[in-house]
Amino acid sequence: MDKLKKIIIQTEKNNSFLEQTFKKLKLFIHPTFIQNNTVQACSFTQTPQKLNSNSTAVNQYFKNTIQQNKNQVLQGNTKSTLIKGKKIAVLFSGGPAAGGHNVLVGIKLALGENNTLYGIKNGPKGFLNGELFEITSQKLTHILNLGGFDFLGSDRTKIKTPEQFNKVKKIVLQYQLDGLIIIGGDDSNTNAAILAEYLFDLKCAVIGVPKTIDGDLQVNHLLPITFGFDTATKIYAELTGNILQDTPSSHKYWHFIKVMGRSASHVALEVALQTKPPITLISEEIAQKKMSLNDIITYILKIILKRYFKGLHHGLVLVPEGLIEFIPEFQILIQELNNTLAQQEKELAQINLFSEKKELIISKINEKSAKLFSSLPQNIQEKLLLNRDSHGNLQVSQIDTEQLLIEMLKRKIQSLKNDPQKLLYALNINANQDDIEKIHKFKFATNHHFFGYEGRCGAPSTFDAAYTVNLGLTAGSLALEHHTGYLASITNLDQNSQIIAIPLSGLITLEKRSGKNEMVIQKALVDLKSPAFEFFSERRSHWAETDCFSSPGPRQYFGPTANQLPFTVALNQGYSNTQFDLGIETDISL
Amino acid sequence: MDKLKKIIIQTEKNNSFLEQTFKKLKLFIHPTFIQNNTVQACSFTQTPQKLNSNSTAVNQYFKNTIQQNKNQVLQGNTKSTLIKGKKIAVLFSGGPAAGGHNVLVGIKLALGENNTLYGIKNGPKGFLNGELFEITSQKLTHILNLGGFDFLGSDRTKIKTPEQFNKVKKIVLQYQLDGLIIIGGDDSNTNAAILAEYLFDLKCAVIGVPKTIDGDLQVNHLLPITFGFDTATKIYAELTGNILQDTPSSHKYWHFIKVMGRSASHVALEVALQTKPPITLISEEIAQKKMSLNDIITYILKIILKRYFKGLHHGLVLVPEGLIEFIPEFQILIQELNNTLAQQEKELAQINLFSEKKELIISKINEKSAKLFSSLPQNIQEKLLLNRDSHGNLQVSQIDTEQLLIEMLKRKIQSLKNDPQKLLYALNINANQDDIEKIHKFKFATNHHFFGYEGRCGAPSTFDAAYTVNLGLTAGSLALEHHTGYLASITNLDQNSQIIAIPLSGLITLEKRSGKNEMVIQKALVDLKSPAFEFFSERRSHWAETDCFSSPGPRQYFGPTANQLPFTVALNQGYSNTQFDLGIETDISL
Repeated sequence: MDKLKKIIIQTEKNNSFLEQTFKKLKLFIHPTFIQNNTVQACSFTQTPQKLNSNSTAVNQYFKNTIQQNKNQVLQGNTKSTLIKGKKIAVLFSGGPAAGGHNVLVGIKLALGENNTLYGIKNGPKGFLNGELFEITSQKLTHILNLGGFDFLGSDRTKIKTPEQFNKVKKIVLQYQLDGLIIIGGDDSNTNAAILAEYLFDLKCAVIGVPKTIDGDLQVNHLLPITFGFDTATKIYAELTGNILQDTPSSHKYWHFIKVMGRSASHVALEVALQTKPPITLISEEIAQKKMSLNDIITYILKIILKRYFKGLHHGLVLVPEGLIEFIPEFQILIQELNNTLAQQEKELAQINLFSEKKELIISKINEKSAKLFSSLPQNIQEKLLLNRDSHGNLQVSQIDTEQLLIEMLKRKIQSLKNDPQKLLYALNINANQDDIEKIHKFKFATNHHFFGYEGRCGAPSTFDAAYTVNLGLTAGSLALEHHTGYLASITNLDQNSQIIAIPLSGLITLEKRSGKNEMVIQKALVDLKSPAFEFFSERRSHWAETDCFSSPGPRQYFGPTANQLPFTVALNQGYSNTQFDLGIETDISL
Repeated sequence: MDKLKKIIIQTEKNNSFLEQTFKKLKLFIHPTFIQNNTVQACSFTQTPQKLNSNSTAVNQYFKNTIQQNKNQVLQGNTKSTLIKGKKIAVLFSGGPAAGGHNVLVGIKLALGENNTLYGIKNGPKGFLNGELFEITSQKLTHILNLGGFDFLGSDRTKIKTPEQFNKVKKIVLQYQLDGLIIIGGDDSNTNAAILAEYLFDLKCAVIGVPKTIDGDLQVNHLLPITFGFDTATKIYAELTGNILQDTPSSHKYWHFIKVMGRSASHVALEVALQTKPPITLISEEIAQKKMSLNDIITYILKIILKRYFKGLHHGLVLVPEGLIEFIPEFQILIQELNNTLAQQEKELAQINLFSEKKELIISKINEKSAKLFSSLPQNIQEKLLLNRDSHGNLQVSQIDTEQLLIEMLKRKIQSLKNDPQKLLYALNINANQDDIEKIHKFKFATNHHFFGYEGRCGAPSTFDAAYTVNLGLTAGSLALEHHTGYLASITNLDQNSQIIAIPLSGLITLEKRSGKNEMVIQKALVDLKSPAFEFFSERRSHWAETDCFSSPGPRQYFGPTANQLPFTVALNQGYSNTQFDLGIETDISL
């Protein structure tokens, strides 16, 4: 076979040229983990900072954990005592996020050759099934800096029934585990907190590692961001920037881009700051301002027309995935639909025609909701009625919000053409006779996109690669020293960064979910008073009126632009620049 | 305002950190264009290689051009004579492709300070309207290495009527143009050839620059590839690689990805070679093997089931955008629909209900086509009937082929569940009793994607950045020396690359289009005997049966993996490696 074919065949199985390079890249290691030129675990001391739960129920529930940790934040310090013979297991929980594999590498580096690391296949479900195997350094050399969660796999099982807890106990005893590390988002870390308390007597420490591309697990300055957010937003920002660059080249399209992020709008906000599109919707603002769907359409249309009158026939609207659930009238509608569908289950099962189903439903919900429902395009109506998860809740991600907006805008524009003067007046746009003439020539050509899966499993950005290996080192060190019920974290990501551990019990609050009080770590939504949102809000009218976009391009692993933090993180943490500093570039010998 | 906000505001208007870097990057300049350490135009000499048109009609049509250029390939040579006082205009034609701005930079470098470069706004249409302005070096510093065509804009007007030709003549005389450079694909370069002949007497040289992300303008070893193809396929390959990486992490989805490329499958083939997905459809192969839609569905389903029986519940199908028009039975159906819609225009206009329209249409087309049409999901039927361009042709890009495949697969799988044994037999799959049991548990969860606009306007890859600046230098040099009717090109991209010019008249053939003979440059489709296709064909069953994917990651501008050629180009040109060599990194002083 000739040379070139051999070269290409060698790229099979996660061995592209860049992947070949990744496996040899140096990693940024925090000085806390470096002693005598080798990478090793650190020890922890208590800081004066304490998290206070306001709920006695929570304090009661986490009695043992809190008695031990006093809800106090810990700080990592270089140390030299060698810990031997510990057995630690690790699992992924929930959707993938870039850097997961490097967390494993970090844990392994902390454990070294004197302790055992078990990988758990297929997430919490695999844990319950006892799918454990020993992770050797050799195996990790193949996944260093690679995207995906495929080395272990993952799933979304919540461990909550007594049977499940018993199974956990059995596995912990069987493998004599001294520690369990759970890599996951808000729900998975709630689960970690609960398991920590449950396994307290077995002396199995449970540690969480903060993961989610949505960025909705944040704790002020203690946890600036989860891993995976940076990579996902850099990928979406490249694509959004490319499409923005396309708009004035072909100057005819409005692109509507929905970006992943089930609930909070952190992803949309970060992509907006990176790319400066004419329009970005932020769900939290829409909820706070109590905007209706019609208000949103009006807001978008005003900008479209203002740009059109200036000769800008193109643009882009960035839409957060969770939008619909933040529009108050939709919240009510969805709640009513959930109830009605449950109540009328039997009747509905006997109806075949969609139009008849619809009629029945409409007769059972209140007038305002019925009117809103009737005003929606049929495909959205169908999805609102049909897509329910096993708990009877709407699967919001199935609703093509970006297409809904386009359809509603098209209708409004049609009515505009029929009576331009009236509608321009209603939109509060000052238009002269020329403008009104122009309305008749106005064409609304659109494209829609959903950026989601593309961003979950990309190779980690330099930030996520560095952040995760140090989070892994932190989690591994915590487990070795038997600190239980902690979340690994790093603060001051721009300079003088610090390795810390946050007591999970201090993050838990009681929340009503489906009528029941549940222990949860509250999702961190976009704070409308945060520096990042305020900055966005100062600039956006400028971005709407003229083309101010920039195209951040693909994430780089070399060269002057490589080591960038998310803008939202830098702004909200009050950093003075956007570069991260997470330690010293170190050759890892796995 | 604080420092950080200033930093972020400075990234507005195409000034992201990477864009800031791009504007200072050194460019690879071919040695032919370097003399006394400065970048300048080259001169050309004839090579012995001659293109022979087989058509006397073509030879007759391009009489003047051929008399001058003898259809001979030219070769660039370093020279020192200084040409002064020439006026050259340049325009973009058709959809954007990465590197267009660098072509302008190359032309400007060739012209230097002693000649004038006019930019034409908004493509051929803007040319007809006389939208010319002088391009200064100062203006180009802002677009160096940036994506998009927005500096000039573009459109898709074909110049073909006598009135249009007269307008062209007027503009050429008004601006005293010595040359016109057209940056475009196969159609635009056909137009360039025709204009060259038409403007022969005015002594205005017309030069083409080969652009298209589709990669369907190729001339064996003379023109290995068009610019824009590398960047687009690298962007799609990153995204496809990311999603492939996602599949074994969540191990439940089959992703169906349609990639842009209106007709030929070059893009799909390149992305397949870069990422190695389990299934890739190549339109040209489907046409040659005369596969029906059902054959394609069967082919995909067999692989899905084989993987399922091995425990691989996930996968990915890569679909070329133009697929439908290559399935013979669809070709016939579309042709019949085109005719019937034209013939029944009046009757159809009076029918409101889609079902009645459908009934009428079905009654007018042949039985086989009617059966195929009836078997399709309704949304596809609607698109097949409703989306016609101004020439009455189907707009293929509007057909959601990836969703059609999913829908047809779901139906087939449903029938499989009803009678597993029969269908497994029909699929020629040896299945034991266990497997048949498994069929009942089989879940087919899918996601679909279309990667298109994301790839047209990204920042040019290092290859496209280097290729385009040298194509611009070539085109500018040709115009200065008054070689007319030539296409700029570079051969031997891996080493000892050569600057050449291909006589456009030698590429033109007569083709029947809508019943009329037309002069065209034939689209280069995927050659099933080409090394790239043969290599793909050797590897694909291996990729189908086990996970062999790789994730090429984002394109890099620095570091060891930066300077990569497309795999298809390297294979088809017989290179021994995948790195390009296009000259010496040079500081451009614009």
